[in-house]
Amino acid sequence: MNTWGHNIKISIFGESHGHGIGIVIDGLPGGVKLDMDKIKREMERRAPGRGSISTARSEPDKVEILSGVVDDVTTGTPIAGIIRNTNTISKHYEKDLLRPGHADYTGFVKYGGNHDYRGGGHFSGRITAPLVFAGAVAKQILEKNNIYLGAHILKISDVSDSSFDYAAVTAEDLMAVSEKDFPVIDDKKGSLMRERILAAKNDLNSVGGVVECAAVGMPAGKGEPFFGSVESRLSSMLYSVPAVKAVMFGAGAEFADMFGSDANDELYCEDGVIKTYTNNNGGINGGITNGMPVVFRAVIKPTPSIARKQRTVNFATKENTEIEIRGRHDPCIVHRGAVVIENAAAIALLDILYDRF
Amino acid sequence: MNTWGHNIKISIFGESHGHGIGIVIDGLPGGVKLDMDKIKREMERRAPGRGSISTARSEPDKVEILSGVVDDVTTGTPIAGIIRNTNTISKHYEKDLLRPGHADYTGFVKYGGNHDYRGGGHFSGRITAPLVFAGAVAKQILEKNNIYLGAHILKISDVSDSSFDYAAVTAEDLMAVSEKDFPVIDDKKGSLMRERILAAKNDLNSVGGVVECAAVGMPAGKGEPFFGSVESRLSSMLYSVPAVKAVMFGAGAEFADMFGSDANDELYCEDGVIKTYTNNNGGINGGITNGMPVVFRAVIKPTPSIARKQRTVNFATKENTEIEIRGRHDPCIVHRGAVVIENAAAIALLDILYDRF
Amino acid sequence: MNTWGHNIKISIFGESHGHGIGIVIDGLPGGVKLDMDKIKREMERRAPGRGSISTARSEPDKVEILSGVVDDVTTGTPIAGIIRNTNTISKHYEKDLLRPGHADYTGFVKYGGNHDYRGGGHFSGRITAPLVFAGAVAKQILEKNNIYLGAHILKISDVSDSSFDYAAVTAEDLMAVSEKDFPVIDDKKGSLMRERILAAKNDLNSVGGVVECAAVGMPAGKGEPFFGSVESRLSSMLYSVPAVKAVMFGAGAEFADMFGSDANDELYCEDGVIKTYTNNNGGINGGITNGMPVVFRAVIKPTPSIARKQRTVNFATKENTEIEIRGRHDPCIVHRGAVVIENAAAIALLDILYDRF
Amino acid sequence: MNTWGHNIKISIFGESHGHGIGIVIDGLPGGVKLDMDKIKREMERRAPGRGSISTARSEPDKVEILSGVVDDVTTGTPIAGIIRNTNTISKHYEKDLLRPGHADYTGFVKYGGNHDYRGGGHFSGRITAPLVFAGAVAKQILEKNNIYLGAHILKISDVSDSSFDYAAVTAEDLMAVSEKDFPVIDDKKGSLMRERILAAKNDLNSVGGVVECAAVGMPAGKGEPFFGSVESRLSSMLYSVPAVKAVMFGAGAEFADMFGSDANDELYCEDGVIKTYTNNNGGINGGITNGMPVVFRAVIKPTPSIARKQRTVNFATKENTEIEIRGRHDPCIVHRGAVVIENAAAIALLDILYDRF
Repeated sequence: MNTWGHNIKISIFGESHGHGIGIVIDGLPGGVKLDMDKIKREMERRAPGRGSISTARSEPDKVEILSGVVDDVTTGTPIAGIIRNTNTISKHYEKDLLRPGHADYTGFVKYGGNHDYRGGGHFSGRITAPLVFAGAVAKQILEKNNIYLGAHILKISDVSDSSFDYAAVTAEDLMAVSEKDFPVIDDKKGSLMRERILAAKNDLNSVGGVVECAAVGMPAGKGEPFFGSVESRLSSMLYSVPAVKAVMFGAGAEFADMFGSDANDELYCEDGVIKTYTNNNGGINGGITNGMPVVFRAVIKPTPSIARKQRTVNFATKENTEIEIRGRHDPCIVHRGAVVIENAAAIALLDILYDRF
Repeated sequence: MNTWGHNIKISIFGESHGHGIGIVIDGLPGGVKLDMDKIKREMERRAPGRGSISTARSEPDKVEILSGVVDDVTTGTPIAGIIRNTNTISKHYEKDLLRPGHADYTGFVKYGGNHDYRGGGHFSGRITAPLVFAGAVAKQILEKNNIYLGAHILKISDVSDSSFDYAAVTAEDLMAVSEKDFPVIDDKKGSLMRERILAAKNDLNSVGGVVECAAVGMPAGKGEPFFGSVESRLSSMLYSVPAVKAVMFGAGAEFADMFGSDANDELYCEDGVIKTYTNNNGGINGGITNGMPVVFRAVIKPTPSIARKQRTVNFATKENTEIEIRGRHDPCIVHRGAVVIENAAAIALLDILYDRF
Repeated sequence: MNTWGHNIKISIFGESHGHGIGIVIDGLPGGVKLDMDKIKREMERRAPGRGSISTARSEPDKVEILSGVVDDVTTGTPIAGIIRNTNTISKHYEKDLLRPGHADYTGFVKYGGNHDYRGGGHFSGRITAPLVFAGAVAKQILEKNNIYLGAHILKISDVSDSSFDYAAVTAEDLMAVSEKDFPVIDDKKGSLMRERILAAKNDLNSVGGVVECAAVGMPAGKGEPFFGSVESRLSSMLYSVPAVKAVMFGAGAEFADMFGSDANDELYCEDGVIKTYTNNNGGINGGITNGMPVVFRAVIKPTPSIARKQRTVNFATKENTEIEIRGRHDPCIVHRGAVVIENAAAIALLDILYDRF
Repeated sequence: MNTWGHNIKISIFGESHGHGIGIVIDGLPGGVKLDMDKIKREMERRAPGRGSISTARSEPDKVEILSGVVDDVTTGTPIAGIIRNTNTISKHYEKDLLRPGHADYTGFVKYGGNHDYRGGGHFSGRITAPLVFAGAVAKQILEKNNIYLGAHILKISDVSDSSFDYAAVTAEDLMAVSEKDFPVIDDKKGSLMRERILAAKNDLNSVGGVVECAAVGMPAGKGEPFFGSVESRLSSMLYSVPAVKAVMFGAGAEFADMFGSDANDELYCEDGVIKTYTNNNGGINGGITNGMPVVFRAVIKPTPSIARKQRTVNFATKENTEIEIRGRHDPCIVHRGAVVIENAAAIALLDILYDRF
């Protein structure tokens, strides 16, 4: 089901080459003055067409708000935002030739062949644009609650950026990296990453990577044990983002190699506020926020659309054959994915913030 | 909220040292003959008290089924299973001294100090026992649909087991490892793991690890794009299991280092069935099963309860102090966690199997 | 929350005088060829401007489908339908003067004064237009399953139409009445009803009434005991329609005067199909359909907007004062309400039809 | 699905003649001191065996609380309450002989014959006992928020009690009637009602009636427009109660005969509080509470179990035959239904009270 959320609810819709895509956001408070320029900037950060490392498709991704906002102020009723599809070239897509790593085959089985396959249809990464719109709204509400999010590219191919200081990362740190066109802490590493992307592109190939995201200011006591855990809710949102294949909180996979004495975050009290010296648990204990920064990583697989010849099957004839994918494709989506993940996380954190008690 | 599921719904309840714990399972079909011995065996696999590497607490974990089953056959109405708490020693717990790595502090904030802190209360790993009961029921229904699950310990501390062959793992492979007391593919590695656990125990410490789980037989076309993705639903369930801090599908974190040409699973058709040569995507494309084995890994952090002296805070006085945790605790919960993860995944996969269309 | 449904999910949005209103429908099957003329006709049946007994506002209510449909065939992904607002005259509305019988006061409290009050905003009966769109789609899917719905005006003011024969009503009966501009079984009674409406209008007043709706062809065994009962789900949908203040199934309120021997529907078997001689239970026993026609009635209160002078309060000043409501208003909404109720019920019945087992 | 609620969630389970019945209540605040005697008294009010007008079955209906409560204080985690089944005589039930007016046939179709038919199984009115337990807890929390509920029998067969004064009913009025063994405002009418019940019993028949329920103290601004309306949520809960076939808010069915000028509740301001002179809308405008008493009526059909000979079908043989129902049955369930409705409404109102904003 394409509806998500407990305290707020979002419903997403659209196909890459249909009339339009969009989202309905329900459960936001009334009286929030929205900065429309900020929303526009988030949309641009995700949009393709920014130089040689992204797809050449130039989509304005302009959101039209149909409801729930009057004079840039939220009314408290559902906000519907739609984005028209333009500049779509459908001729590059051939329905029956299944693209490896894509949802072509599963789409066929799921929808009995009735799905709109053009441009990936409902499976397209383009459908994350409405998610970014919702996240851009959510981020503004979070900021009014002194909660700030930021994401950077931790790794692309074999090049790694510095990591956030999990126990000490600040809103300023997050804003500084978020403002960059290519969000990395260490710009030299950023240059190397771009080189890797261009090399992959020239090699008719693609690369994957890791996004690291942090949120500071989340009050302690939000989330639930078990099914309503912060990890459950954030991961269910993050795994909605196409191409995400791993989600890790705090020390994440590194916990496997730790001893309890290293992994445990010892506590101390400062000015009446209880904190931890380290933040291996990523700000979450027992599924509930502890007031430390909420930190997680998401792994994004290499773009499956590559121009190289690949073995595949013709769905109609069931014949084994080969495919050479044409069209305009990103050799890497990690930098755009960082924007999506940051905004998707904002939606989830707002939902969690609204937990009662 | 302690309710999970779309097509089936489970509600979990209980505190470690209260009267009882349990679960209500709604949405199962009627007419399923349950093998009660199998359920009992699953409960025993998770239960503590099996030798030196687990806690000395001996809990029978006997499930009493109150409803939804007559003469071992499901009626189609909600199944309620309860487990009485016995053998609880509460004196070891001190409410105000916050245990590092535990939910003591977050529980205080969340519940305003009203939570039952004894034995970890509702945050206790003991609450996974009802989850295993539900999973044991789900597994039997999955098996009637020729779907089989199995989990093994992929890693404890610095010792790694062999991995499943993602593209070729069979039901037999899964059953073979599941039947073991200490579920590893390579028993020699299992011995080394046990050594690591005992060494940690003797060192008043604990170790973490990784569980790898696979399911074979899931039909293609199950799951949804975006919020209803197989990854979203499985991860939201897996992150309900205390101590899980990373969840990865297929190649998972390794995707970050791959090129698209390596990551993509090329397709072929055999006897009319479309398959992939590799299974880096863990049987899931676009959030939907593709008929290949569904494979994922979960990282379990080291048990936070260790006997070593640790720095902490007294919640009542807000004083910085130290804690030495006593009581009976597991130096490692990965082997018990493997059982929980396998059964929790069974619940999620059954929910996904029941997707329409 | 503005999302409804278990097996299908609809999300509604919009304000009467905002940019647009609409709905997202998720969970429909792919491959359904939609008859767009039928949808258009349903929209026209609900639309205002059909003669002297309705409001003079002439709204085209043209639905633009943004997603989920290609070449008039559903894809299986969410269908988003939007309707632009045109012909809105906002000057008639004064925010602080609370209209009796309306949601003006509750809207103020609920949304802290941030709601779009123009034309009733999100509370406007106009927001039922997207509901009719969704119902028109649902009806076509129901009809492909040989399930037919129809509603007629059972009563307006003191004039009553004949009732459906609950145990014997046919699809033909339902179609015959649905096709009428003013849906009554007995057209003479329809003329009298129109007279009552015009008399109320001339008297600066309004009238209410009762809609009776039936569905034939629902298979036995759909719905759930307790919270998922057919009555619970239908009533939760019907009470979403503004102005509905009573919902009754089968004999409804008349059960209070009956003896068990009259109320019980005795059973018989004909050609292997189990039926009941009477249908006082409205086709539902224990919350579950029994294969007989599903029949219910909904009471619609008189339009609260009347031109007469009424006592009220100025919300801003808290002064007791009077109001004379101007603008274009229906002296009766029962005939338009019948269309909304029929279509809203179609959504609910489709959701119920998709219950598993 | 047997789970209900948005802000709180309840899951109900059990069969009349199984091991036990019960409920899990999630989402309640911690720190609420429960008066266990009050809960016990609610359970007794619903319980059978109180004299000649109820069934002779004497069930203690003692609730055992397994979790979520320590020393009579809520912890904030899920409360599980179970009731053991005792004193069950199953021999009176014959599975294949379908009882008219009951869910025997629909149960067969729904559950494929696997349901526990003994004593009505999961369809039994007995399953409302856990609902009363949850309601008794909810009522105590509502009372701490100065919200009081009460229900009385408005009508049994042809005898009507006085109605509440919808615009002026007080907490004291509600308590006064709730405390009565046979809850009517006018005890003389109560005596006549009892006569009607006994007469029906002697005539091997049964009677139905109407319950009227009011809640005072609900703050204005709770509930949502459309699907989250107070009417939608209350009715979905009330229609979960077996035998309820009509639900009406405020003037309810009488709206059909009213003019707008009579139906509208004119407003006035008193000491800064906005009120209405009349309360035809039952305290709800646009789906949202307006601060006036929330008032509704529920119609309960005559008990379907009557000793008279009735025509029916043998499900197994599909033969037309007759049935004479034996066993201990209520000739009227309206007085017990009043308790269930009052408590079920308490659950719904608590859920509504917890709406944000």
